[in-house]
Amino acid sequence: MAERSSWEDDDLTALRDLARSFCEKEIQPNTEKFIEQHHVDRDLWNKAGDLGLLCMSIPEEYGGGGGTFAHEAVLIEEQARVADSSWGVSLHNGIVAHYILEYGSEEQKKTWLPKMASGEAVGAIAMTEPGTGSDLQNVKTKAIKQGDEYVIDGSKTFITNGGQADIIIVVAKTDVSEGAKGISLILVEAEREGFRRGRVLDKIGQRGQDTSELFFDGVRVPTSNLLGAEEGQGFVQLMMQLPQERLIIALASVAGMEKAVSETIAYTKDRTAFGRPIFSFQNTKFKLAEAATEARIARVFVDDCITKHIKGELDIPTVAMAKWWTSDRAMVVADECLQLFGGYGYMNEYPIARLWADNRVQKIYAGTNEIMKEIIARTL
Amino acid sequence: MAERSSWEDDDLTALRDLARSFCEKEIQPNTEKFIEQHHVDRDLWNKAGDLGLLCMSIPEEYGGGGGTFAHEAVLIEEQARVADSSWGVSLHNGIVAHYILEYGSEEQKKTWLPKMASGEAVGAIAMTEPGTGSDLQNVKTKAIKQGDEYVIDGSKTFITNGGQADIIIVVAKTDVSEGAKGISLILVEAEREGFRRGRVLDKIGQRGQDTSELFFDGVRVPTSNLLGAEEGQGFVQLMMQLPQERLIIALASVAGMEKAVSETIAYTKDRTAFGRPIFSFQNTKFKLAEAATEARIARVFVDDCITKHIKGELDIPTVAMAKWWTSDRAMVVADECLQLFGGYGYMNEYPIARLWADNRVQKIYAGTNEIMKEIIARTL
Amino acid sequence: MAERSSWEDDDLTALRDLARSFCEKEIQPNTEKFIEQHHVDRDLWNKAGDLGLLCMSIPEEYGGGGGTFAHEAVLIEEQARVADSSWGVSLHNGIVAHYILEYGSEEQKKTWLPKMASGEAVGAIAMTEPGTGSDLQNVKTKAIKQGDEYVIDGSKTFITNGGQADIIIVVAKTDVSEGAKGISLILVEAEREGFRRGRVLDKIGQRGQDTSELFFDGVRVPTSNLLGAEEGQGFVQLMMQLPQERLIIALASVAGMEKAVSETIAYTKDRTAFGRPIFSFQNTKFKLAEAATEARIARVFVDDCITKHIKGELDIPTVAMAKWWTSDRAMVVADECLQLFGGYGYMNEYPIARLWADNRVQKIYAGTNEIMKEIIARTL
Amino acid sequence: MAERSSWEDDDLTALRDLARSFCEKEIQPNTEKFIEQHHVDRDLWNKAGDLGLLCMSIPEEYGGGGGTFAHEAVLIEEQARVADSSWGVSLHNGIVAHYILEYGSEEQKKTWLPKMASGEAVGAIAMTEPGTGSDLQNVKTKAIKQGDEYVIDGSKTFITNGGQADIIIVVAKTDVSEGAKGISLILVEAEREGFRRGRVLDKIGQRGQDTSELFFDGVRVPTSNLLGAEEGQGFVQLMMQLPQERLIIALASVAGMEKAVSETIAYTKDRTAFGRPIFSFQNTKFKLAEAATEARIARVFVDDCITKHIKGELDIPTVAMAKWWTSDRAMVVADECLQLFGGYGYMNEYPIARLWADNRVQKIYAGTNEIMKEIIARTL
Repeated sequence: MAERSSWEDDDLTALRDLARSFCEKEIQPNTEKFIEQHHVDRDLWNKAGDLGLLCMSIPEEYGGGGGTFAHEAVLIEEQARVADSSWGVSLHNGIVAHYILEYGSEEQKKTWLPKMASGEAVGAIAMTEPGTGSDLQNVKTKAIKQGDEYVIDGSKTFITNGGQADIIIVVAKTDVSEGAKGISLILVEAEREGFRRGRVLDKIGQRGQDTSELFFDGVRVPTSNLLGAEEGQGFVQLMMQLPQERLIIALASVAGMEKAVSETIAYTKDRTAFGRPIFSFQNTKFKLAEAATEARIARVFVDDCITKHIKGELDIPTVAMAKWWTSDRAMVVADECLQLFGGYGYMNEYPIARLWADNRVQKIYAGTNEIMKEIIARTL
Repeated sequence: MAERSSWEDDDLTALRDLARSFCEKEIQPNTEKFIEQHHVDRDLWNKAGDLGLLCMSIPEEYGGGGGTFAHEAVLIEEQARVADSSWGVSLHNGIVAHYILEYGSEEQKKTWLPKMASGEAVGAIAMTEPGTGSDLQNVKTKAIKQGDEYVIDGSKTFITNGGQADIIIVVAKTDVSEGAKGISLILVEAEREGFRRGRVLDKIGQRGQDTSELFFDGVRVPTSNLLGAEEGQGFVQLMMQLPQERLIIALASVAGMEKAVSETIAYTKDRTAFGRPIFSFQNTKFKLAEAATEARIARVFVDDCITKHIKGELDIPTVAMAKWWTSDRAMVVADECLQLFGGYGYMNEYPIARLWADNRVQKIYAGTNEIMKEIIARTL
Repeated sequence: MAERSSWEDDDLTALRDLARSFCEKEIQPNTEKFIEQHHVDRDLWNKAGDLGLLCMSIPEEYGGGGGTFAHEAVLIEEQARVADSSWGVSLHNGIVAHYILEYGSEEQKKTWLPKMASGEAVGAIAMTEPGTGSDLQNVKTKAIKQGDEYVIDGSKTFITNGGQADIIIVVAKTDVSEGAKGISLILVEAEREGFRRGRVLDKIGQRGQDTSELFFDGVRVPTSNLLGAEEGQGFVQLMMQLPQERLIIALASVAGMEKAVSETIAYTKDRTAFGRPIFSFQNTKFKLAEAATEARIARVFVDDCITKHIKGELDIPTVAMAKWWTSDRAMVVADECLQLFGGYGYMNEYPIARLWADNRVQKIYAGTNEIMKEIIARTL
Repeated sequence: MAERSSWEDDDLTALRDLARSFCEKEIQPNTEKFIEQHHVDRDLWNKAGDLGLLCMSIPEEYGGGGGTFAHEAVLIEEQARVADSSWGVSLHNGIVAHYILEYGSEEQKKTWLPKMASGEAVGAIAMTEPGTGSDLQNVKTKAIKQGDEYVIDGSKTFITNGGQADIIIVVAKTDVSEGAKGISLILVEAEREGFRRGRVLDKIGQRGQDTSELFFDGVRVPTSNLLGAEEGQGFVQLMMQLPQERLIIALASVAGMEKAVSETIAYTKDRTAFGRPIFSFQNTKFKLAEAATEARIARVFVDDCITKHIKGELDIPTVAMAKWWTSDRAMVVADECLQLFGGYGYMNEYPIARLWADNRVQKIYAGTNEIMKEIIARTL
């Protein structure tokens, strides 16, 4: 399993060393603390920015690292290696920054990307609403143009980085008489009047993450905060960016499987029952052989997706396959592994316990796995 | 699903009404509080005792209700109806009191059972150790006879009611040169010197329960605290009582399935996506039909086990089947149901989320499901 | 597993002895022959009739045994004990005869039931058509009244006992302008002109059964052959009888699981690999413990259904649960068991191989398992 | 799914055209006939030889095509496209010929490979015995050296190409006092006295294949028929060649999945129920999306294995992963697809039915999937 992925070159391996030491030094010792306070320390972002771990796949002219998705992939994998689920950096790096890069005006890019790269600004995207899950066309938040401002009203939920975000991409209807065509993306700075953060949501897992509700009560932003040249592009923009978001989840799922397997091999070889290492029981060996197989197969598939994605050749149904399948199997693997820990598998001090609870949401967000199957079926 | 179980008569239905109103009044509104403090309010036990909800299957002469296992079953089901996992009453009622009833001296019974029935004393049993899970023969805690006292040294973990217990049945070696034959059960009062409770364990679920580590450092108890006429009976006593413990888990698993299904039917009929109730999608209908089927089949099987158990005819491999299968399927059902809630399924404010996390341990404790399969295989 | 079912009394046990010796003497030695010729010997029916094994649940006044569904159940179980899938007696006994008993005129009953009880006449029901599976409302076969005759045109497929049937209940539209309301059941004698049997269908399993296509080209029968007092009752009649048909499949599935488990225990205890009985490997033990558990749970559920059915209390969604779940799990059990035979599991000389191939169709016929889930979901 | 595999170049695509037309012309129309006679026509081998479809990965100097494993892969895929399971060419091409190429003397290679390439000689390997499955060390067939001859006694079973083979590699003990070290591979010509073929075995599927028992009663061959420079190399030789055999099975499994999915998409789009194409039901769409996903993931993994194998970099545990996982999922996919055909899925005239029955053995042969898990576990 230690084999280097096909897309990794020596530069990326050097980045991996940097990311690994950062995760081991800045995250791992603080896991309990992050969970207790339900957010990472704010300066974790700045420290990461100082080291060049933010916006790695954003061009250098905007303060980024000038890298590709592979650079983001390395950090995602290294987070998984320390079983971190508190730091919403993959959303910041891999999603929010890319919306701005792809659709932002030159001014928007110049304003926000360098700040996101340094850690001065944390990014979020506010998509889901209390009344709409995967059904984006039904968004109720509205942004009504009044002169040279939009007035935004609505509420959002399940917002990753919701507690710390400085800049939020809000999915809103600029034309409430339309469905998908009425949707626009609008940048909202967190200091705008009328913007309010709700409590951090009480989740099964990922408890160190400040997932929040956000409220917009007559928030006014200049029309220049619109993302894209004209209104009504939001739905298409979302469709274009969702594949990368789903690929991030697929990769995190694979990395989670690998972590679960390696933790469990170590535990079962060390721990004895009935006078023998637990590993030596045939049931243990078969369960781990199965888990290791699925981790490996998922790895090869996602590596192939990453390679294609870097070349711009990854299509939507393929990434939907990767998202649903890896997130589904990651839970099977985590569950079988947890079981081999016996009672300790249920204790949060063991990474396998947190990993099990953390990973469950991957079957749900960025489009539920049911939505993924709909997407795939459409192309059959 | 509303059909009355074959073992339920009108008296039991009356008890059910009582238990239901108790759970709805005393437990449901306090769920969040119990979870936050990691234990139920101490006086919950006394209130339950006042109403006759403790020690229902203990003879009246010892202060109990004079009922059967069916009485305990009713309370277990009603706890599940409010998705409670904080109150360790099934252990107190269905396990600890029965060890004392079955193996205790007349004096032990007269001393402890009335207190347990009133709620004055909370019971626990200290079996598992940090170094031994399902492998009881390897218990390291020892109780060495010195004159008319036992001196107890060792530590225990995963102890339900560990934080509130007043009377603890300790599994210890009275003869460290022996395996199973060296094991005895000894009553230890919580006020004994040298006894110490560790922290409440940080678990994935059942977070309102005061599951704890317990430490015994030279704790001295009179030899009359031995449970049973002579030393060395502990292993057999455990083997005799484990079936009832496993049946309790099987019943709790079934009740958990029924709760999951009914919560999810209600939610999916109420909630819409893409302009239709979620329930109306064929995938939703099929998943719920599958879940309802498994809940019903599990119910019929466990009802049959209960009927046999009340007649004294339930054998060990059959209850092992009930334990592993229902706890396994309960998680499948909970997982499929959770998924149908979308993002809300991951939020602890929804009972389905807690139920999912709470139920996971049922595949592990009272003998892991792997141990159950070993037990069954021996009889094939 | 040797435990007697709750619905079995001493009379039924006596019947079981008779049925067992019949199956062992008349069926088991001829299995290969039946498979080769794709039908049982015609006189098997007469021999069974002579012994009272036909129409056991038909009143004595019509030549039947005067028993209940329990009597049919015993024969179904004993067939499974010799892994027979060639003899379509459960259809003849449990379904065709009951349509006539329930809906037939006194004359129809007097004419056909005694012949069916003696084995003089073999019964079939012609439901499915090449173009319609579970969608009965779309039946294309028509029976047009002309004077005092019906003229029947159409073709049917997948007809059990199609090759040997003397009397066939044909599902036809007497009013082609209607859907379900246009359907009637009509008795067709095999010697009628215009009736023709197609080839025996080449199936994956159940290869000793003469499942056939049937063709009706202007077949004329007197209007007195209508089953029921008036036209248009067919759909309701089918809906009323399908539960018993599905219960038969559920029972056959359970009996198949029990057979698979017992065959596999015997084989794995006898056969060695790497110097040990295959049974002694933990994987073998766990797989068999799982299989034995599901067989047992299915048994308790189906026994409960049978008891309810005899009392007339079995409802449609419950039997739908029984049908889909047992047929689904029967295949899982058969598949796991087959695997434990290694290469021999793939050889038809081993009953496990035939059982695997035979049982697959139970997920499909008498309403696919998907239809069962639709039925269940409607009641949630 | 129509995407070309990474290892396929234009030459291979040209070969694919040739192989496709051969399969469509020579195999597809004869499927029923092959199944009825339980073997392919003998001249199918010669026709294939004439077209260069035999021994494609054997060097040209021995009459082969001078290609790589990729050439064999193309033919395996094209066989799957016509759902052929009758022709044992992948064993002949991909396994038997390679034993001779790898371990044979120059004379053996010169004698046999050109004949195998032309179709003059059909090859088989006789490994399994009635009393040993995956446990090769326990082989009972012995080859005792007498002067310059070996005298071979024993019996073999499950031998692919057993009915038509002209040259058979026999796994035998040349030293019965040893385990693995006593095993040698010996070439036996089918015309040798004392060699006898048993009946073609009656299997669940692959019924057009002449899988047979073989008997060796004092068969004498010259010592120069030993494969390899000295005795006792057989076990190691087998271990070295089994990976390629397992890769062939993995590839056949993937190709079977692709075939199942494409057949089922076509059927469910064409066939209607309840007035709509079966494909349009959400359950159908989800099942097919799942099946298509697993087919695609398996394809990417096996393509990666093939690429590594051609470079000589495929390790034993990775191919064990590929073998067990693809053969396992191929049956899940086949089963879900079969179900969507309703009753027709059970009829052998539909390729899905045969594919389901044919593929089952892939979980068993070339090392059962349980053996695969043992192999993987050893490396964890």
